[in-house]
Amino acid sequence: MAQTRDAPRTRRILLDAAARAVLAHGATVSLEVVAREAGVSKGGLLHHFPSKDALFSGLVDDLMTQFDATVEAHLDPADDRPGRLTRAYVRAVFANLGHPNGADTLRHDATLMAALGHLPQVLARAQEDGRHWKEAFAQDGLHPQRSALITRAADGTATASLFEGRLEPRELAETRDLLLALTEETGPLLK
Amino acid sequence: MAQTRDAPRTRRILLDAAARAVLAHGATVSLEVVAREAGVSKGGLLHHFPSKDALFSGLVDDLMTQFDATVEAHLDPADDRPGRLTRAYVRAVFANLGHPNGADTLRHDATLMAALGHLPQVLARAQEDGRHWKEAFAQDGLHPQRSALITRAADGTATASLFEGRLEPRELAETRDLLLALTEETGPLLK
Repeated sequence: MAQTRDAPRTRRILLDAAARAVLAHGATVSLEVVAREAGVSKGGLLHHFPSKDALFSGLVDDLMTQFDATVEAHLDPADDRPGRLTRAYVRAVFANLGHPNGADTLRHDATLMAALGHLPQVLARAQEDGRHWKEAFAQDGLHPQRSALITRAADGTATASLFEGRLEPRELAETRDLLLALTEETGPLLK
Repeated sequence: MAQTRDAPRTRRILLDAAARAVLAHGATVSLEVVAREAGVSKGGLLHHFPSKDALFSGLVDDLMTQFDATVEAHLDPADDRPGRLTRAYVRAVFANLGHPNGADTLRHDATLMAALGHLPQVLARAQEDGRHWKEAFAQDGLHPQRSALITRAADGTATASLFEGRLEPRELAETRDLLLALTEETGPLLK
Protein backbone atom coordinates (compact mmCIF):
# COMPACT_ATOMS: atom_id res chain seq x y z
CA MET A 1 0.00 0.00 0.00
CA ALA A 2 1.54 3.27 -1.18
CA GLN A 3 0.45 4.98 2.04
CA THR A 4 2.83 2.81 4.07
CA ARG A 5 5.77 3.02 1.69
CA ASP A 6 5.44 6.79 1.35
CA ALA A 7 4.48 7.50 4.96
CA PRO A 8 6.91 10.43 5.42
CA ARG A 9 5.75 12.01 2.17
CA THR A 10 2.07 11.58 3.08
CA ARG A 11 2.77 13.01 6.53
CA ARG A 12 4.39 16.04 4.86
CA ILE A 13 1.38 16.54 2.57
CA LEU A 14 -1.00 16.27 5.54
CA LEU A 15 0.98 18.76 7.66
CA ASP A 16 1.16 21.27 4.80
CA ALA A 17 -2.57 20.89 4.20
CA ALA A 18 -3.27 21.29 7.93
CA ALA A 19 -1.19 24.49 8.04
CA ARG A 20 -3.09 25.94 5.06
CA ALA A 21 -6.42 24.96 6.61
CA VAL A 22 -5.61 26.51 10.01
CA LEU A 23 -4.33 29.70 8.33
CA ALA A 24 -7.55 29.97 6.32
CA HIS A 25 -10.11 28.88 8.91
CA GLY A 26 -8.48 29.03 12.34
CA ALA A 27 -8.16 26.33 15.00
CA THR A 28 -11.84 25.41 14.69
CA VAL A 29 -11.22 23.87 11.24
CA SER A 30 -12.54 20.30 10.95
CA LEU A 31 -10.53 17.20 10.09
CA GLU A 32 -12.83 16.80 7.04
CA VAL A 33 -11.64 20.13 5.67
CA VAL A 34 -7.98 19.23 6.29
CA ALA A 35 -8.43 15.84 4.59
CA ARG A 36 -10.11 17.48 1.58
CA GLU A 37 -7.32 20.09 1.39
CA ALA A 38 -4.75 17.25 1.40
CA GLY A 39 -6.69 15.23 -1.17
CA VAL A 40 -7.01 12.18 1.10
CA SER A 41 -9.93 10.49 2.82
CA LYS A 42 -10.66 11.26 6.45
CA GLY A 43 -9.64 7.66 7.20
CA GLY A 44 -6.30 8.28 5.50
CA LEU A 45 -5.76 11.35 7.65
CA LEU A 46 -6.74 9.48 10.86
CA HIS A 47 -4.26 6.72 9.95
CA HIS A 48 -1.42 9.26 10.36
CA PHE A 49 -2.96 11.54 12.98
CA PRO A 50 -5.61 9.79 15.11
CA SER A 51 -7.12 13.08 16.39
CA LYS A 52 -7.17 16.81 15.81
CA ASP A 53 -4.97 17.20 18.90
CA ALA A 54 -2.43 14.81 17.38
CA LEU A 55 -2.53 16.67 14.07
CA PHE A 56 -2.06 20.08 15.65
CA SER A 57 0.77 18.97 17.94
CA GLY A 58 2.34 17.35 14.88
CA LEU A 59 2.10 20.67 13.10
CA VAL A 60 3.76 22.62 15.90
CA ASP A 61 6.34 19.89 16.39
CA ASP A 62 7.20 20.14 12.70
CA LEU A 63 7.55 23.93 12.85
CA MET A 64 9.91 23.67 15.84
CA THR A 65 11.90 20.80 14.33
CA GLN A 66 12.44 22.89 11.20
CA PHE A 67 13.72 25.82 13.26
CA ASP A 68 16.04 23.49 15.22
CA ALA A 69 17.43 22.22 11.92
CA THR A 70 17.99 25.80 10.70
CA VAL A 71 19.97 26.61 13.85
CA GLU A 72 21.97 23.37 13.49
CA ALA A 73 22.77 24.27 9.87
CA HIS A 74 24.21 27.57 11.11
CA LEU A 75 26.60 25.98 13.64
CA ASP A 76 30.13 26.75 12.52
CA PRO A 77 32.20 23.51 12.70
CA ALA A 78 35.38 25.57 13.05
CA ASP A 79 33.97 27.49 16.04
CA ASP A 80 34.70 25.91 19.42
CA ARG A 81 34.55 29.04 21.52
CA PRO A 82 31.91 29.85 24.17
CA GLY A 83 28.74 31.22 22.56
CA ARG A 84 28.84 28.84 19.57
CA LEU A 85 25.14 27.90 19.81
CA THR A 86 24.06 31.48 20.54
CA ARG A 87 25.86 32.60 17.37
CA ALA A 88 24.16 29.87 15.33
CA TYR A 89 20.78 30.91 16.76
CA VAL A 90 21.34 34.56 15.84
CA ARG A 91 22.52 33.63 12.33
CA ALA A 92 19.52 31.34 11.84
CA VAL A 93 16.96 33.99 12.90
CA PHE A 94 18.53 36.63 10.66
CA ALA A 95 18.90 34.22 7.75
CA ASN A 96 15.14 33.61 7.98
CA LEU A 97 14.47 37.36 8.20
CA GLY A 98 16.79 38.18 5.31
CA HIS A 99 15.21 35.57 3.05
CA PRO A 100 12.94 37.08 0.33
CA ASN A 101 10.00 35.11 1.78
CA GLY A 102 11.19 35.63 5.35
CA ALA A 103 8.30 37.89 6.34
CA ASP A 104 5.80 35.40 4.93
CA THR A 105 7.39 32.47 6.74
CA LEU A 106 7.36 34.40 9.97
CA ARG A 107 3.75 35.45 9.46
CA HIS A 108 2.90 31.83 8.70
CA ASP A 109 4.60 30.52 11.86
CA ALA A 110 3.27 33.28 14.11
CA THR A 111 -0.27 32.76 12.81
CA LEU A 112 -0.10 29.03 13.44
CA MET A 113 1.24 29.51 16.96
CA ALA A 114 -1.29 32.24 17.65
CA ALA A 115 -4.14 30.06 16.40
CA LEU A 116 -3.03 26.88 18.17
CA GLY A 117 -0.99 28.04 21.17
CA HIS A 118 -3.87 27.84 23.64
CA LEU A 119 -4.45 24.10 23.02
CA PRO A 120 -3.02 22.00 25.90
CA GLN A 121 -1.01 19.60 23.70
CA VAL A 122 0.43 22.42 21.61
CA LEU A 123 1.27 24.40 24.73
CA ALA A 124 3.01 21.35 26.24
CA ARG A 125 5.10 20.89 23.07
CA ALA A 126 6.00 24.60 23.06
CA GLN A 127 7.01 24.54 26.72
CA GLU A 128 9.14 21.45 26.09
CA ASP A 129 10.84 23.39 23.29
CA GLY A 130 11.42 26.34 25.64
CA ARG A 131 13.07 24.02 28.21
CA HIS A 132 15.18 22.38 25.51
CA TRP A 133 16.58 25.75 24.39
CA LYS A 134 17.18 26.90 27.96
CA GLU A 135 19.19 23.74 28.71
CA ALA A 136 21.14 24.01 25.47
CA PHE A 137 22.04 27.66 26.15
CA ALA A 138 23.05 26.77 29.73
CA GLN A 139 25.86 24.66 28.19
CA ASP A 140 26.96 27.30 25.68
CA GLY A 141 29.58 28.91 27.91
CA LEU A 142 28.00 32.38 28.15
CA HIS A 143 26.46 33.87 31.28
CA PRO A 144 22.76 32.82 31.03
CA GLN A 145 21.73 36.48 31.23
CA ARG A 146 23.87 37.25 28.20
CA SER A 147 22.66 34.40 25.95
CA ALA A 148 19.03 35.06 27.01
CA LEU A 149 19.22 38.74 26.15
CA ILE A 150 20.94 38.12 22.81
CA THR A 151 18.49 35.45 21.69
CA ARG A 152 15.45 37.41 22.96
CA ALA A 153 16.67 40.44 21.00
CA ALA A 154 16.99 38.25 17.88
CA ASP A 155 13.41 36.99 18.42
CA GLY A 156 12.27 40.58 19.00
CA THR A 157 13.78 41.68 15.69
CA ALA A 158 11.63 39.01 14.06
CA THR A 159 8.58 40.35 15.92
CA ALA A 160 9.41 43.89 14.81
CA SER A 161 9.35 42.76 11.20
CA LEU A 162 5.83 41.44 11.85
CA PHE A 163 4.60 44.66 13.48
CA GLU A 164 6.65 47.20 11.52
CA GLY A 165 6.91 45.53 8.13
CA ARG A 166 10.08 44.35 6.45
CA LEU A 167 13.18 45.88 8.09
CA GLU A 168 15.95 47.52 6.03
CA PRO A 169 18.72 45.05 5.07
CA ARG A 170 21.29 47.49 6.52
CA GLU A 171 19.45 47.64 9.86
CA LEU A 172 19.12 43.85 9.91
CA ALA A 173 22.84 43.40 9.23
CA GLU A 174 23.81 45.91 11.92
CA THR A 175 21.59 44.27 14.52
CA ARG A 176 22.87 40.80 13.63
CA ASP A 177 26.48 41.95 13.83
CA LEU A 178 25.89 43.65 17.17
CA LEU A 179 24.28 40.50 18.61
CA LEU A 180 27.11 38.32 17.26
CA ALA A 181 29.71 40.70 18.73
CA LEU A 182 27.95 40.50 22.11
CA THR A 183 28.56 36.70 22.10
CA GLU A 184 32.32 37.32 22.08
CA GLU A 185 32.32 38.23 25.77
CA THR A 186 31.06 35.69 28.27
CA GLY A 187 30.19 37.55 31.50
CA PRO A 188 26.86 39.08 32.54
CA LEU A 189 25.85 42.16 30.53
CA LEU A 190 25.30 44.03 33.73
CA LYS A 191 28.19 44.19 36.16
CA MET B 1 -29.35 60.23 14.54
CA ALA B 2 -27.79 58.06 17.22
CA GLN B 3 -25.06 56.95 14.83
CA THR B 4 -23.67 60.49 14.71
CA ARG B 5 -23.98 61.22 18.42
CA ASP B 6 -22.42 57.91 19.41
CA ALA B 7 -19.87 57.78 16.59
CA PRO B 8 -16.88 56.83 18.83
CA ARG B 9 -18.91 54.08 20.48
CA THR B 10 -20.12 52.71 17.13
CA ARG B 11 -16.54 52.83 15.81
CA ARG B 12 -15.43 50.81 18.84
CA ILE B 13 -18.16 48.22 18.25
CA LEU B 14 -17.21 47.96 14.57
CA LEU B 15 -13.48 47.56 15.29
CA ASP B 16 -14.11 44.88 17.92
CA ALA B 17 -16.41 43.05 15.51
CA ALA B 18 -13.82 43.35 12.72
CA ALA B 19 -11.12 41.91 14.99
CA ARG B 20 -13.34 38.94 15.93
CA ALA B 21 -14.22 38.38 12.27
CA VAL B 22 -10.58 38.46 11.10
CA LEU B 23 -9.54 36.13 13.92
CA ALA B 24 -12.29 33.66 12.98
CA HIS B 25 -12.14 33.87 9.17
CA GLY B 26 -8.86 35.53 8.21
CA ALA B 27 -8.22 38.57 6.02
CA THR B 28 -10.58 37.29 3.31
CA VAL B 29 -13.60 37.94 5.56
CA SER B 30 -16.32 40.02 3.84
CA LEU B 31 -17.69 43.36 5.04
CA GLU B 32 -21.11 41.68 5.21
CA VAL B 33 -19.80 39.24 7.83
CA VAL B 34 -18.20 42.08 9.84
CA ALA B 35 -21.43 44.11 9.72
CA ARG B 36 -23.47 41.10 10.85
CA GLU B 37 -20.99 40.42 13.68
CA ALA B 38 -21.35 44.06 14.77
CA GLY B 39 -25.14 44.00 14.48
CA VAL B 40 -25.26 46.90 12.00
CA SER B 41 -26.23 47.16 8.33
CA LYS B 42 -23.51 47.10 5.69
CA GLY B 43 -24.43 50.76 5.00
CA GLY B 44 -23.85 51.59 8.66
CA LEU B 45 -20.41 49.97 8.48
CA LEU B 46 -19.52 51.80 5.24
CA HIS B 47 -20.53 55.10 6.86
CA HIS B 48 -17.64 54.66 9.34
CA PHE B 49 -15.22 52.69 7.15
CA PRO B 50 -15.78 53.26 3.42
CA SER B 51 -13.81 50.16 2.37
CA LYS B 52 -12.25 46.97 3.69
CA ASP B 53 -8.84 48.67 3.40
CA ALA B 54 -10.08 51.52 5.58
CA LEU B 55 -11.53 49.09 8.12
CA PHE B 56 -8.35 47.00 8.34
CA SER B 57 -6.04 50.02 8.63
CA GLY B 58 -8.41 51.35 11.29
CA LEU B 59 -8.04 48.07 13.14
CA VAL B 60 -4.24 48.12 13.05
CA ASP B 61 -4.18 51.82 13.89
CA ASP B 62 -6.34 51.09 16.93
CA LEU B 63 -4.06 48.26 18.08
CA MET B 64 -0.99 50.51 17.82
CA THR B 65 -2.72 53.48 19.45
CA GLN B 66 -3.63 51.25 22.40
CA PHE B 67 -0.02 50.10 22.79
CA ASP B 68 1.20 53.73 22.62
CA ALA B 69 -1.27 54.61 25.37
CA THR B 70 0.01 51.71 27.50
CA VAL B 71 3.59 52.95 27.15
CA GLU B 72 2.51 56.51 27.97
CA ALA B 73 0.71 55.25 31.09
CA HIS B 74 4.00 53.69 32.21
CA LEU B 75 6.05 56.90 31.90
CA ASP B 76 7.20 57.87 35.37
CA PRO B 77 6.52 61.62 35.89
CA ALA B 78 9.29 61.76 38.51
CA ASP B 79 11.82 60.24 36.10
CA ASP B 80 13.76 62.81 34.06
CA ARG B 81 16.88 60.76 33.45
CA PRO B 82 18.05 59.43 30.07
CA GLY B 83 16.21 56.22 29.17
CA ARG B 84 12.83 57.39 30.52
CA LEU B 85 10.88 56.25 27.44
CA THR B 86 12.84 52.98 27.14
CA ARG B 87 11.94 52.18 30.76
CA ALA B 88 8.25 52.95 30.10
CA TYR B 89 8.33 50.70 27.01
CA VAL B 90 9.86 47.80 28.98
CA ARG B 91 7.36 48.26 31.84
CA ALA B 92 4.46 48.37 29.35
CA VAL B 93 5.49 45.16 27.54
CA PHE B 94 5.99 43.26 30.80
CA ALA B 95 2.74 44.64 32.30
CA ASN B 96 0.93 43.19 29.26
CA LEU B 97 2.79 39.88 29.63
CA GLY B 98 2.15 39.67 33.37
CA HIS B 99 -1.56 40.35 32.96
CA PRO B 100 -3.75 37.21 33.45
CA ASN B 101 -5.03 37.64 29.87
CA GLY B 102 -1.64 38.79 28.61
CA ALA B 103 -0.99 35.70 26.49
CA ASP B 104 -4.46 36.00 24.93
CA THR B 105 -4.00 39.70 24.13
CA LEU B 106 -0.65 38.98 22.55
CA ARG B 107 -2.05 36.07 20.56
CA HIS B 108 -4.92 38.33 19.48
CA ASP B 109 -2.59 41.13 18.33
CA ALA B 110 -0.09 38.79 16.67
CA THR B 111 -2.87 37.00 14.81
CA LEU B 112 -4.33 40.26 13.54
CA MET B 113 -0.93 41.52 12.38
CA ALA B 114 -0.10 38.16 10.85
CA ALA B 115 -3.44 38.07 9.01
CA LEU B 116 -3.36 41.68 7.83
CA GLY B 117 0.34 42.63 7.70
CA HIS B 118 0.73 41.94 3.99
CA LEU B 119 -1.97 44.48 2.99
CA PRO B 120 -0.35 47.69 1.63
CA GLN B 121 -2.31 50.11 3.85
CA VAL B 122 -1.70 48.04 6.96
CA LEU B 123 1.99 47.72 6.10
CA ALA B 124 2.24 51.50 5.59
CA ARG B 125 0.63 52.12 9.00
CA ALA B 126 2.98 49.60 10.63
CA GLN B 127 6.05 51.16 9.01
CA GLU B 128 4.91 54.61 10.14
CA ASP B 129 4.66 53.21 13.67
CA GLY B 130 8.18 51.77 13.37
CA ARG B 131 9.55 55.19 12.30
CA HIS B 132 7.67 56.91 15.13
CA TRP B 133 9.26 54.64 17.74
CA LYS B 134 12.71 54.98 16.21
CA GLU B 135 12.48 58.80 16.35
CA ALA B 136 11.14 58.74 19.89
CA PHE B 137 13.97 56.47 21.09
CA ALA B 138 16.54 58.66 19.30
CA GLN B 139 15.55 61.43 21.74
CA ASP B 140 15.61 59.24 24.84
CA GLY B 141 19.24 59.94 25.74
CA LEU B 142 20.57 56.37 25.38
CA HIS B 143 22.93 55.18 22.67
CA PRO B 144 20.56 54.00 19.87
CA GLN B 145 22.18 50.55 19.97
CA ARG B 146 21.34 50.27 23.66
CA SER B 147 17.67 51.33 23.46
CA ALA B 148 17.18 49.18 20.34
CA LEU B 149 18.60 46.06 21.99
CA ILE B 150 16.63 46.58 25.21
CA THR B 151 13.31 47.13 23.44
CA ARG B 152 13.92 44.27 20.96
CA ALA B 153 14.66 41.97 23.90
CA ALA B 154 11.38 43.07 25.53
CA ASP B 155 9.53 42.33 22.26
CA GLY B 156 11.34 38.99 22.03
CA THR B 157 10.21 38.03 25.52
CA ALA B 158 6.66 38.60 24.30
CA THR B 159 7.39 36.39 21.26
CA ALA B 160 8.82 33.70 23.53
CA SER B 161 5.57 33.62 25.48
CA LEU B 162 3.79 33.00 22.16
CA PHE B 163 6.13 30.18 21.10
CA GLU B 164 6.96 28.71 24.51
CA GLY B 165 3.74 29.30 26.40
CA ARG B 166 3.30 31.49 29.47
CA LEU B 167 6.66 32.31 31.06
CA GLU B 168 7.26 31.92 34.79
CA PRO B 169 6.47 35.11 36.78
CA ARG B 170 9.96 34.92 38.33
CA GLU B 171 11.63 34.69 34.92
CA LEU B 172 9.52 37.58 33.63
CA ALA B 173 10.42 39.74 36.64
CA GLU B 174 14.13 38.95 36.31
CA THR B 175 14.17 39.77 32.60
CA ARG B 176 12.25 43.02 33.15
CA ASP B 177 14.60 44.06 35.97
CA LEU B 178 17.66 43.27 33.85
CA LEU B 179 16.32 45.33 30.94
CA LEU B 180 15.43 48.22 33.26
CA ALA B 181 18.91 48.08 34.83
CA LEU B 182 20.47 48.21 31.36
CA THR B 183 18.72 51.57 30.78
CA GLU B 184 20.70 53.07 33.68
CA GLU B 185 23.83 53.33 31.57
CA THR B 186 23.75 55.37 28.38
CA GLY B 187 26.68 54.27 26.19
CA PRO B 188 26.77 51.54 23.54
CA LEU B 189 26.51 47.99 24.90
CA LEU B 190 29.58 47.04 22.96
CA LYS B 191 32.71 49.09 23.61
